[in-house]
Amino acid sequence: MRLLSYLNRTFNGFPSSSKLLLVFSLSGGGLLAYSESQSNSPANSVEHEGLANKKKVVALGTGWASTSFLKDLDISSYDVQVVSPRNYFAFTPLLPSVTCGTVEARSIVEPIRNIIKKKNGEILFWEAECTKIDAANKKVFCRSVIESNLVGKKEFSLDYDYLVVATGAEVNTFNTPGVMEYCHFLKEVEDAQKIRRSVIDCFEKAILPELTEEERRINLHFVIVGGGPTGVEFAAELHDFVHEDLVKLYPMVKNLVRITVIQSGDHILNTYDSRISTFAEQKFARDGIDVHTGCRVLSVSDKEVNMKIKSTGENVSMPHGMVVWSTGVSTRPVIKDFMDQIGQGKRKVLATDEWLRVKGCENVYAIGDCATIDQRKIMEDIGAIFNAADKDKSGILTVEEFNDIIDDILIRYPQVELHLQNKHLSSVTQLLNDPEGNARKEIDIKVFKSALSQADSQMKSLPATAQVAAQQGTYLSSCFDKRDVAKITPEGPRRFKGTGRHYFLPFRYKHFGQFAPLGGEQAAAELPGDWVSVGRSTQWLWYSVYASKQVSWRTRVLVVSDWTRRSIFGRDSSRI
Amino acid sequence: MRLLSYLNRTFNGFPSSSKLLLVFSLSGGGLLAYSESQSNSPANSVEHEGLANKKKVVALGTGWASTSFLKDLDISSYDVQVVSPRNYFAFTPLLPSVTCGTVEARSIVEPIRNIIKKKNGEILFWEAECTKIDAANKKVFCRSVIESNLVGKKEFSLDYDYLVVATGAEVNTFNTPGVMEYCHFLKEVEDAQKIRRSVIDCFEKAILPELTEEERRINLHFVIVGGGPTGVEFAAELHDFVHEDLVKLYPMVKNLVRITVIQSGDHILNTYDSRISTFAEQKFARDGIDVHTGCRVLSVSDKEVNMKIKSTGENVSMPHGMVVWSTGVSTRPVIKDFMDQIGQGKRKVLATDEWLRVKGCENVYAIGDCATIDQRKIMEDIGAIFNAADKDKSGILTVEEFNDIIDDILIRYPQVELHLQNKHLSSVTQLLNDPEGNARKEIDIKVFKSALSQADSQMKSLPATAQVAAQQGTYLSSCFDKRDVAKITPEGPRRFKGTGRHYFLPFRYKHFGQFAPLGGEQAAAELPGDWVSVGRSTQWLWYSVYASKQVSWRTRVLVVSDWTRRSIFGRDSSRI
Repeated sequence: MRLLSYLNRTFNGFPSSSKLLLVFSLSGGGLLAYSESQSNSPANSVEHEGLANKKKVVALGTGWASTSFLKDLDISSYDVQVVSPRNYFAFTPLLPSVTCGTVEARSIVEPIRNIIKKKNGEILFWEAECTKIDAANKKVFCRSVIESNLVGKKEFSLDYDYLVVATGAEVNTFNTPGVMEYCHFLKEVEDAQKIRRSVIDCFEKAILPELTEEERRINLHFVIVGGGPTGVEFAAELHDFVHEDLVKLYPMVKNLVRITVIQSGDHILNTYDSRISTFAEQKFARDGIDVHTGCRVLSVSDKEVNMKIKSTGENVSMPHGMVVWSTGVSTRPVIKDFMDQIGQGKRKVLATDEWLRVKGCENVYAIGDCATIDQRKIMEDIGAIFNAADKDKSGILTVEEFNDIIDDILIRYPQVELHLQNKHLSSVTQLLNDPEGNARKEIDIKVFKSALSQADSQMKSLPATAQVAAQQGTYLSSCFDKRDVAKITPEGPRRFKGTGRHYFLPFRYKHFGQFAPLGGEQAAAELPGDWVSVGRSTQWLWYSVYASKQVSWRTRVLVVSDWTRRSIFGRDSSRI
Repeated sequence: MRLLSYLNRTFNGFPSSSKLLLVFSLSGGGLLAYSESQSNSPANSVEHEGLANKKKVVALGTGWASTSFLKDLDISSYDVQVVSPRNYFAFTPLLPSVTCGTVEARSIVEPIRNIIKKKNGEILFWEAECTKIDAANKKVFCRSVIESNLVGKKEFSLDYDYLVVATGAEVNTFNTPGVMEYCHFLKEVEDAQKIRRSVIDCFEKAILPELTEEERRINLHFVIVGGGPTGVEFAAELHDFVHEDLVKLYPMVKNLVRITVIQSGDHILNTYDSRISTFAEQKFARDGIDVHTGCRVLSVSDKEVNMKIKSTGENVSMPHGMVVWSTGVSTRPVIKDFMDQIGQGKRKVLATDEWLRVKGCENVYAIGDCATIDQRKIMEDIGAIFNAADKDKSGILTVEEFNDIIDDILIRYPQVELHLQNKHLSSVTQLLNDPEGNARKEIDIKVFKSALSQADSQMKSLPATAQVAAQQGTYLSSCFDKRDVAKITPEGPRRFKGTGRHYFLPFRYKHFGQFAPLGGEQAAAELPGDWVSVGRSTQWLWYSVYASKQVSWRTRVLVVSDWTRRSIFGRDSSRI
């Protein structure tokens, strides 16, 4: 029955295939049997709950990518296991709010078992860390992360037919000495809770008797390294926490607090629209938050941040009470080891193709921050494309032949569309115009090449955001769900180098806009059209409704109730 | 003005003093000046915010006793400082609920600064541990407990004119080997949070692949040592958490969970009415919670609890996943050191008189779990009482002379009233009846002694409960507030050994009933009259409204909202 409903869904978009649909519908049972008989039952693995004929899927991680994948995956034809050291999904865009108690940690997490138990309880979850991916033997090795005296083996291994790597990335210290030892981070829920306690510690220490005013000032100096959205949002939250709540409780030291943001670039929020960046800098200046741009941190000690001012080359050191490091991400060791195995050892980040398949490896997918899509350049395939388009092998492409192939080109090489937009061309055929702007009827390979030669410069890699990860997860689950159908009626673009079509459309990121947190109740939103200023609650609503299916009703209610609590009672300053 | 309103309040109960009241009212300003000129300004201390003529009060602790004291204290005539390693007050009766996430940790705490800032911001709080009380020099030595690299001295000392010791007690391990290393406790908020994480750890470990069923069973064996109210309530909460929430998330291991309560006495809840104790045992039997009574724990290791079965003398060991130790309290090292200084070294617990003044020490008070009241025996004073009552020094007490003194006796020696109740006597004079039950007109010292000889057997020490601590704090603050007035118009009973009256009435505990947690939504309440079965929410409401002024509206709203969340969404099982 599920298969039939799939087929229906899949074919609704293809009226011309309605005859075929009928055939499939009638033979649905047979098709299912066929696909099952196709599956290779792994020889050396223990079967779970008698799901003998199902393909084994192992997913690593419980972040945005993995949970979106699991949420939509139809497990009637897969035997799914999930491995992660975190037994919950965290709604990371609200992490900076947790640091100051605007929102409680528990309100932004959802137990992964709640997410997966909706799938009839058939997805298994193991709270463990993946220590090694053995791609050659289709195995992952795992180790429980629970540090306790509980009995039983900590290590185990899992066999897979398909592996979905969604382990995320780790903090990037750029090998700066002292960062690991003395800095706070903002990656995990625990990080945010630690920051909250440390902020209170700084205040409790600073007001103790027998400290000099200078010592009090140092303890109340909060330094944020990194002027990206996370660092800026934390600085803004901290400012609000200090000025709305803490000054009332620690009035003796309220004038000694200082917040400093250190940014290596020339502006904070430099990936955003320059108006936002300027607005944020002006707001920070009004709020008394110091912004040091053009500074590179050389080292961090327990008492000082040492940095180089790029413009003057001068080295300065800045005493601090607490440092939060928020400068981007890098690849985890287990992924580096995996990259070495599959010949990606020289790359910095794990590469996948446009279908999110790890390059150089069968049946392994990677989604979210742990990988980047290595978009194929059109110029590498330009000859093959020309040959495929040139049906009569005349060496000349007519407009008809070109039009026949252009949709597949646009799907396979999204940079072409960006190139068109960039050139302000309304139609693809305008690419073929001669230098005077007149339409050509026919083109040869040389003209074809030169028409597309600049397209590849439009390629850019996707940002490491929750939005991208969530969309990749959803995309990948839809491919898994359609796998058997797609083998028979592929939906992807034509294979220019081979024959037939790709099974699936390649992954395409839809940008739903982004938010720039500006402190207070303000945020700027990039919505279709332009940037607008909105309230912070709007940001959350937007995320909650449009961007994420992981956000349960529980989370929505809890976050709203936390906001209500805060607006009535203020933030809690108890050191727990 | 504050003094005037005090005087009004104080004297409203004494219509016969209305003339005096008028005088005081008119000379209020002068009286205030007088009391200020009386205060000895300490020579060697730094004055805070120019409160030069105020007496310095230092309070140690932020628990029930200390916060009730601070909440009601009038700080117009005191310069108050509070020292505690916890910057918040915790509503401890709900700690067992925090262990399972029925209530969130933050909902049951209130920042101490919120409580004290209501006093016009003039109470100072230091987050530090008192390391030594120097009674001879009226000084306390303190050390910051913040483990970080913040700058400035960690140690400082405070001078006091009055010291209020309310540091509470620490866990009593009875020197059982392994308890400190391998057991959880239920004293602090952090303890409850750790237990919550550990319960989840046990489940996550127990379901991992490659464990034997026996290993899974051991990891899911929760042992509670101590069958008092805290241990029993935790067992009941854990049972509900497991059976209402966790079995849905960990269905594979739901039949392997075991909860065991180990009690050295013959019954759990053995300080309660025996019906409650029996009811609790029957309910636990129905719920499948094992109760081992008459067992003494000899040692605890990372894997096992070793105990002796008292009836057979047999030693048995019990493998466990997690042990919670909840067997009573003992004296903290800093208090033991203080007791040595003031000649109380041979006692187990710090002793105060009935006015909560530490015995053997001037101007030091002790309230809450850190001390016990050493009630004066009437037989020690019997001669002095007779002499004071025998106004005409005839060696014979008339009924009139006895009646003249009996109120003071009942106030000074509360055991006499209990003795009357115990003997079912409706009037005090019946004490003086001859053996045939006939009223005597006169008695000599011998009859007087024998009439009261059994009264002292009715003395019993107060339990270490929140209710007692809170009432002591409130009582002590009222004494502090009335200090100057009481010197002129003492309100206490006659001094039988000296002349005049005691300044204040001695502390008298009013028992407002108690609750026995029985798991599920049930509790039993001892209310005036008898035990009745009530819902758990009733217990909380009762506490919140009648027993505690510390419970802010914030806490009330948060706890109710936590209950609402739980009833809608269940408890959260994320391991954070």
